[in-house]
Amino acid sequence: MARIVMKFGGTSMAGIERIRHVANLVKREAEARNQVAVVVSAMAGETDRLVQLCREAASLYDPREYDVVVASGEQVTSGLLAITLQGMGVNARSYMGWQLPIRTSGHAAALIEGIDAAVLERVFSEGGIAVIPGFQGVTEAGDVTTLGRGGSDTTAVAVAAAMKADRCDIYTDVDGVYTTDPRIVPRARKLDQVSYEEMLELASLGAKVLNTRSVELAMARKVPVRVLSSFVQPEEIKPGWTEGRGTLVCEEDEVVEQRIVSGVAYSRDEAKITLLGLPYKPGVPAGVFRRLAEANVNVDMIVQSRARTSDSVNMEFTVPKRDAQRTLELMQANQAEIGFEEVRRDDEVAKISVVGVGMRSHAGVAETMFAALADKGVTIQVISTSEIKISVLIDAAYTELAVRALHAAYGLEQV
Amino acid sequence: MARIVMKFGGTSMAGIERIRHVANLVKREAEARNQVAVVVSAMAGETDRLVQLCREAASLYDPREYDVVVASGEQVTSGLLAITLQGMGVNARSYMGWQLPIRTSGHAAALIEGIDAAVLERVFSEGGIAVIPGFQGVTEAGDVTTLGRGGSDTTAVAVAAAMKADRCDIYTDVDGVYTTDPRIVPRARKLDQVSYEEMLELASLGAKVLNTRSVELAMARKVPVRVLSSFVQPEEIKPGWTEGRGTLVCEEDEVVEQRIVSGVAYSRDEAKITLLGLPYKPGVPAGVFRRLAEANVNVDMIVQSRARTSDSVNMEFTVPKRDAQRTLELMQANQAEIGFEEVRRDDEVAKISVVGVGMRSHAGVAETMFAALADKGVTIQVISTSEIKISVLIDAAYTELAVRALHAAYGLEQV
Repeated sequence: MARIVMKFGGTSMAGIERIRHVANLVKREAEARNQVAVVVSAMAGETDRLVQLCREAASLYDPREYDVVVASGEQVTSGLLAITLQGMGVNARSYMGWQLPIRTSGHAAALIEGIDAAVLERVFSEGGIAVIPGFQGVTEAGDVTTLGRGGSDTTAVAVAAAMKADRCDIYTDVDGVYTTDPRIVPRARKLDQVSYEEMLELASLGAKVLNTRSVELAMARKVPVRVLSSFVQPEEIKPGWTEGRGTLVCEEDEVVEQRIVSGVAYSRDEAKITLLGLPYKPGVPAGVFRRLAEANVNVDMIVQSRARTSDSVNMEFTVPKRDAQRTLELMQANQAEIGFEEVRRDDEVAKISVVGVGMRSHAGVAETMFAALADKGVTIQVISTSEIKISVLIDAAYTELAVRALHAAYGLEQV
Repeated sequence: MARIVMKFGGTSMAGIERIRHVANLVKREAEARNQVAVVVSAMAGETDRLVQLCREAASLYDPREYDVVVASGEQVTSGLLAITLQGMGVNARSYMGWQLPIRTSGHAAALIEGIDAAVLERVFSEGGIAVIPGFQGVTEAGDVTTLGRGGSDTTAVAVAAAMKADRCDIYTDVDGVYTTDPRIVPRARKLDQVSYEEMLELASLGAKVLNTRSVELAMARKVPVRVLSSFVQPEEIKPGWTEGRGTLVCEEDEVVEQRIVSGVAYSRDEAKITLLGLPYKPGVPAGVFRRLAEANVNVDMIVQSRARTSDSVNMEFTVPKRDAQRTLELMQANQAEIGFEEVRRDDEVAKISVVGVGMRSHAGVAETMFAALADKGVTIQVISTSEIKISVLIDAAYTELAVRALHAAYGLEQV
């Protein structure tokens, strides 16, 4: 007997046929005498539809009322899954965020502050299964809240932590975490295990498998998370069918396989802004980034360079593509105050990253990267590193070429 | 300053454009410094969609989970109306059935047991408007419930009673209660006032304007209900625009206009079952209706007749058309035990009723009815009467002819 959380995303809940399939997966775990809490997303597309209705209702909508509207999508799917499970003879009931309760901070993109496990303990002691809508909670004052897009993963991990689950299984439409995007490298390898830290870097670098906040929470609360596909043939669903499937996200020292680099990620979601001819004196960079922070623009990579014979510098940084135009205008509006000569914007860039906890103890990881890219004639525009990650900014046209070269250089292919 | 409840049905809430129009109507009342609670239905079609999803999920669905799913429709519209009102500068907030709370009995088709007015009093004291989803409530145990189809009218009246409202305005797609169906009698007259008792008979006889249960509750709690149309041109919405509009449903002695008959109603929703050659002895009719009651078939009109020279009787009764086949089979299965000779079913019947509290004190109302029908060659098959109503069952082909004849006979035309 194990305690597990099973989380199903919007594609897995899209329509009664898919919900029935999900119910079969849940029933399998119940038959294995596991104590199960199921966390569900809204049907694919439903949250977008509800958000759109709020936008049409008023340009500046009250987050309290937005939450009331948008939380209804998961309310529907959790009721439907409970009905479907009961129809299969499984003792299941739904518990809304306010019924459990899942206590959160303020509104729209709220944070989970705590989950009362008393209701779940009672359900389990009666041999039942709890179906919980993801993405929603309730404030101290009794208002409905939502957690922000992708919040259902976070609900699942938080529920798992509250009920001290042995495992939190995140069912999605891919069968695990890969060494890189299989659409670019067909021989990309599925990782059986990956550490929280690596998963966090991969998630924030554009791997869409898990929501970043849920990985942070899993790491903080030491919840083992398994990512696996809900798209499995009905005849495959038998006792122990999940063993060896998917990718387990766990603590670094539990990862059995030894490797220096775990994955190669890429993102084309950033744009590069270049400021030419900035005065070379204290306070100038602070002035640039203070303005960006005030405008709520997230800056990622930053480099500054100075020509040997000049008393001015050039600065390059990246911002999310959707903020690029705004950033450009912000810089232009402050050109005189900041004192640069020229500002340029380049959307045709890609960030390529290699991630691995093995870097901490192994030298030469960066050299391998730079050599592999140079070998293919790829120019590195910006470099940024963290303890377990090296990212480079390159011309977007070289994205696939660079990913393939690095994947090969670190020996990540399937054998 | 008055305290009012405004209730809007599904057609009035169907889409953001309609919701914006509703918000304008609400804003008008707020500007008149009234204390307003708004009760809303789900968007037209939405409840049907949700019910259908439950049916597809399992043939026998748990009413607790059904309620969770189906209550979401009103949750969405109440949030959207609150957002829209706020966008117009009106201080509005939504309160779900469990937040107010609206306490109800069990599940699916629950009854309202009580509404706590404390939240509403606080909202009013702060100059705010409360938006309340109709049709939903919460049990003592904290489960979401729904009131059964048409339940939003009942929510509106119950909220009005709890907050001691001066008036409960039910906005719908017709502009009041008519002396009869204007599609049959173009010169049908809108009633300015109608008593609770008359409205109750008219509602149960097929006039779809108000849900029967809501009228009973209004009568019991003496809540003045006004039925009026939400389909009004924006330029008409100015101070006092609702005066003289719609129909006020109130206590009998408040109805100013003196009249004997208030309306002519018709229903084609019933079928006639005839049992021929029943033994003429005690206990036989009881045996018939006990079996129907056990099968949950609602019997409406009943007559029994005996030929002078026979020791057997014939019995005729009506049941809802949807139960006619079931009733026929039930009778056939019990033919030997009940002891009748033959059973017949006739779906081609219509029930025509005249309703009016004036009947109590005026003789000759029935004679006028029978004479008017005889004059047009309409054969009366079954008659049933109550204190303020006379109903006859006739061949359905004569429905319109009979309605027109009666409407004229009682002088109900517009002048």
